Amino acid sequence: MEFVVYLAGEIHTAWREEIKNLAKERQLPLTFVGPMENHDRSDSIGEEILGEQPGKVYKDDAASDINNLRTSVLMNKADIVVALFGEQYKQWNTAMDASTAIALNKPLILIRPENLHHPLKELSNKANVTVSTVEQALKALSYIFEQE
Amino acid sequence: MEFVVYLAGEIHTAWREEIKNLAKERQLPLTFVGPMENHDRSDSIGEEILGEQPGKVYKDDAASDINNLRTSVLMNKADIVVALFGEQYKQWNTAMDASTAIALNKPLILIRPENLHHPLKELSNKANVTVSTVEQALKALSYIFEQE
Amino acid sequence: MEFVVYLAGEIHTAWREEIKNLAKERQLPLTFVGPMENHDRSDSIGEEILGEQPGKVYKDDAASDINNLRTSVLMNKADIVVALFGEQYKQWNTAMDASTAIALNKPLILIRPENLHHPLKELSNKANVTVSTVEQALKALSYIFEQE
Amino acid sequence: MEFVVYLAGEIHTAWREEIKNLAKERQLPLTFVGPMENHDRSDSIGEEILGEQPGKVYKDDAASDINNLRTSVLMNKADIVVALFGEQYKQWNTAMDASTAIALNKPLILIRPENLHHPLKELSNKANVTVSTVEQALKALSYIFEQE
Amino acid sequence: MEFVVYLAGEIHTAWREEIKNLAKERQLPLTFVGPMENHDRSDSIGEEILGEQPGKVYKDDAASDINNLRTSVLMNKADIVVALFGEQYKQWNTAMDASTAIALNKPLILIRPENLHHPLKELSNKANVTVSTVEQALKALSYIFEQE
Amino acid sequence: MEFVVYLAGEIHTAWREEIKNLAKERQLPLTFVGPMENHDRSDSIGEEILGEQPGKVYKDDAASDINNLRTSVLMNKADIVVALFGEQYKQWNTAMDASTAIALNKPLILIRPENLHHPLKELSNKANVTVSTVEQALKALSYIFEQE
Amino acid sequence: MEFVVYLAGEIHTAWREEIKNLAKERQLPLTFVGPMENHDRSDSIGEEILGEQPGKVYKDDAASDINNLRTSVLMNKADIVVALFGEQYKQWNTAMDASTAIALNKPLILIRPENLHHPLKELSNKANVTVSTVEQALKALSYIFEQE
Amino acid sequence: MEFVVYLAGEIHTAWREEIKNLAKERQLPLTFVGPMENHDRSDSIGEEILGEQPGKVYKDDAASDINNLRTSVLMNKADIVVALFGEQYKQWNTAMDASTAIALNKPLILIRPENLHHPLKELSNKANVTVSTVEQALKALSYIFEQE
Repeated sequence: MEFVVYLAGEIHTAWREEIKNLAKERQLPLTFVGPMENHDRSDSIGEEILGEQPGKVYKDDAASDINNLRTSVLMNKADIVVALFGEQYKQWNTAMDASTAIALNKPLILIRPENLHHPLKELSNKANVTVSTVEQALKALSYIFEQE
Repeated sequence: MEFVVYLAGEIHTAWREEIKNLAKERQLPLTFVGPMENHDRSDSIGEEILGEQPGKVYKDDAASDINNLRTSVLMNKADIVVALFGEQYKQWNTAMDASTAIALNKPLILIRPENLHHPLKELSNKANVTVSTVEQALKALSYIFEQE
Repeated sequence: MEFVVYLAGEIHTAWREEIKNLAKERQLPLTFVGPMENHDRSDSIGEEILGEQPGKVYKDDAASDINNLRTSVLMNKADIVVALFGEQYKQWNTAMDASTAIALNKPLILIRPENLHHPLKELSNKANVTVSTVEQALKALSYIFEQE
Repeated sequence: MEFVVYLAGEIHTAWREEIKNLAKERQLPLTFVGPMENHDRSDSIGEEILGEQPGKVYKDDAASDINNLRTSVLMNKADIVVALFGEQYKQWNTAMDASTAIALNKPLILIRPENLHHPLKELSNKANVTVSTVEQALKALSYIFEQE
Repeated sequence: MEFVVYLAGEIHTAWREEIKNLAKERQLPLTFVGPMENHDRSDSIGEEILGEQPGKVYKDDAASDINNLRTSVLMNKADIVVALFGEQYKQWNTAMDASTAIALNKPLILIRPENLHHPLKELSNKANVTVSTVEQALKALSYIFEQE
Repeated sequence: MEFVVYLAGEIHTAWREEIKNLAKERQLPLTFVGPMENHDRSDSIGEEILGEQPGKVYKDDAASDINNLRTSVLMNKADIVVALFGEQYKQWNTAMDASTAIALNKPLILIRPENLHHPLKELSNKANVTVSTVEQALKALSYIFEQE
Repeated sequence: MEFVVYLAGEIHTAWREEIKNLAKERQLPLTFVGPMENHDRSDSIGEEILGEQPGKVYKDDAASDINNLRTSVLMNKADIVVALFGEQYKQWNTAMDASTAIALNKPLILIRPENLHHPLKELSNKANVTVSTVEQALKALSYIFEQE
Repeated sequence: MEFVVYLAGEIHTAWREEIKNLAKERQLPLTFVGPMENHDRSDSIGEEILGEQPGKVYKDDAASDINNLRTSVLMNKADIVVALFGEQYKQWNTAMDASTAIALNKPLILIRPENLHHPLKELSNKANVTVSTVEQALKALSYIFEQE
């Protein structure tokens, strides 16, 4: 039995590589999917496909059309969602992806530095598991396959 | 990971061939399904299976029984729906298929010539992405698989 | 027991008044709701609230934001949807509203001139009842309350 | 017909009073509900009911238990959700409430200063309407009741 | 707290009057709804509204359009469904209404003479309660309101 | 793309063999599932597994436990349901299976001799397609795969 | 705005009276519903309505038919569920009611003596709030109505 | 066609081995999944991943986070749930898993010694099948694949 894991959250550190490598080491039957990790392309994909837009808000709207399409297709396929919050950026789309996972009855692991717990407390409370490191998240994923 | 794409919309131009060829060129793991593309057969399938009907409306009702069965089976399997509106015909069943996709939480790409935007504005507003050409739709599909 | 009826469809004839009057004559406990019936205001409501937009498509997108909000709120309250198709306009949002009603398990009555049956055949096939006149639609609504 | 409106978002400005007053002026049949607006009490409600907790994270978890209970009860009753993002705080629970509204098929109006559009672009894209001021949000609510 | 009870099943005996009278005697806060009880009108309602049809099957299809509209509207409002099977007729629409109630998570009481249990065994197995008389069904309804 | 077809309905004629053979001739990628076709075993499976029961009704209840388990597992897997009504027996579980398919949004083909249309009119009205012969049902299934 | 609260759990202590009195003291707009509180009648209601059964298991099955009907009707109406676990009895139907509330997206407050936390840990983890006393549960309910 | 079976319930006897062996003997195409069967690890998994907790209740909460994640992922994949109740322990999470299966429309087989029927009567009443031994459960599973 194989599972698809959607990796929501920031795209400025190498945390996705880290979790993929840890899963490979343990030979877990997991396929990882996630958002476009090239930040510039993620921001400009709307204009890339739809052409130049008449201002920043319109450029953003066009980009979010395509990004939400991608997220929706991939998250529908996911058996588990892992969402990572970091120190930087507003990360409201991470909160949106995590909340959508909850609403779709997809099990959710939240990763955040403990000092960010206060503003995340309501979302953390709805997640299945909240951890502080990628390695802890991987251990939780691994536990699903362990018998003893 | 492979996706099934339902191609809703008019059956009088070769747009389905075009999108399939573009997907093949890019080697995207997509399977395309859609309605009966032979217009005459689509109109007469009711009488073909159920026998002659006592008038046009009854012939149409019988045909739509079979066409809706087909659409329902295939759309249930679809991960993504692409709906194309053209210049001709009423295309109310295209609007119906697109709306059904939205209601079933299936990501939707709308293709229409920009001059048709006004009458499509409410439906376009609910779609994930609205574009003007088949090539743009394909680029949006391709983006789902790209990492950078 | 009172029911809320959403009247979807064209806003250029007085059919909503007609159905309301017929219901009043029969003293049916029905509350009717529907879209903004002032066509110009419906088209400009986006700019009215959000300010001037940089082109027709953007003006339309802004308007459809507000119109879809209204439809969504009112249709969620509806127990029954009546959708009328006329001879003019593309009426793709009527098809969208009718399809949404079906998807939300809200009983649907379709009104259309019989000569429009062919392009509506798939949608008609999914509706509970398809009729040709407002009076017939009202009779179907009235039947819900009749005992004999 | 009366509607219940859940007012999600920050509790440090008087925006809820503003929207309630505007609705009263226009005599709109709206009942407004929302979170505990006393920030200190919202943070300490867990310990107030469950007793002292062994640390900050545990205090936060206890508080979010009660806050999420409240939000869940009230949002289930809501016909419309308005979510306001301001300049301060992480506001991840606002993003969570807004996303939950979308998932529950509850129409959503987003209010944010335009300079915050970029980090909100994906969430804004899923909302029905995105505006910059409370007055605009009220106009959108008012439009639901207007006939002309 | 008041409940709406949909009374599905045959329309050739006075069982609906019986259950209404028993509820009135016990002063239970129940509102009863159900199908058109005039059999001839139920069969001819399609032609009454839609005009003469070109044969028996078409007449039946037209009638079932209107009858299913009525059932759908009323059952959506119901908190409880009571379905009675008698000795006569095929009663496949009674089985359909009962099954629909189960699928909509509406509690279901089945009434049938015990000698009909064998052909009803699968449906009875899915119902909440299966009884032999109208009086037993009323006792089950009454129990919902009793404290001791 | 392969589909699973659940064959609901009577188990006293060879119609399942007929439809399987027709599908094999046309090389349609269909897997057929259905109820226990040995009538005696279907009736006694409850006592076979659970031991002797204290009377007919209890024997029937035990059997329907196991039969409904089987139907539920297999129908959850089905992409399409075909339900056949014949001249004999009450066939209320066929009506139940067909209605359950509709409620689960599984496309439904109804097969019945035309002279049984009247008592089936409401169920037929909800089915996607109603035909008179197994061969017609197979043609409707085949049409899903045809391009021209 | 009034809420309906379903009080699940043991019927051998006066905790329902206690919570009702506390709500009355605070003048909370809550309507409380719950199971039959007369234990003997709850156990014998099956035979009371359906007649003598051929053994204990059959008597229990008959009683649970009627008790589950009652619970299902009342819980469908509930906005909030409170489930109390005590020291005695297996209380598996309390666990069932609490789990059903979670599945129906109904906010859940769990009351249990702290020494019972270990065997309840998975269920407690899914509940919105877990407390030790009826008074704490009432405080959580009251908080929903408080503004400051 | 292969099915996934989730084995809920106590982890202190070898019943899972027994059912797997019986399925292997009959060559049934079943994949079995279930909870962590090492009781100590199940209790300490929270602290193992999240670090030491400040007391028993917090240790339990941490463990149930991870155990519920596992159950949720695996039960989402399950086509059938088998839940076994034994003589020992409170087994409220077994009741929770069984109730969740019912709510998710997953067919449920309950295994319990007959002397435990009384406290399980409401849950048993909602299950598809209730049996006394693992062998009976396996026979019910096997019946799904049998044709005669």
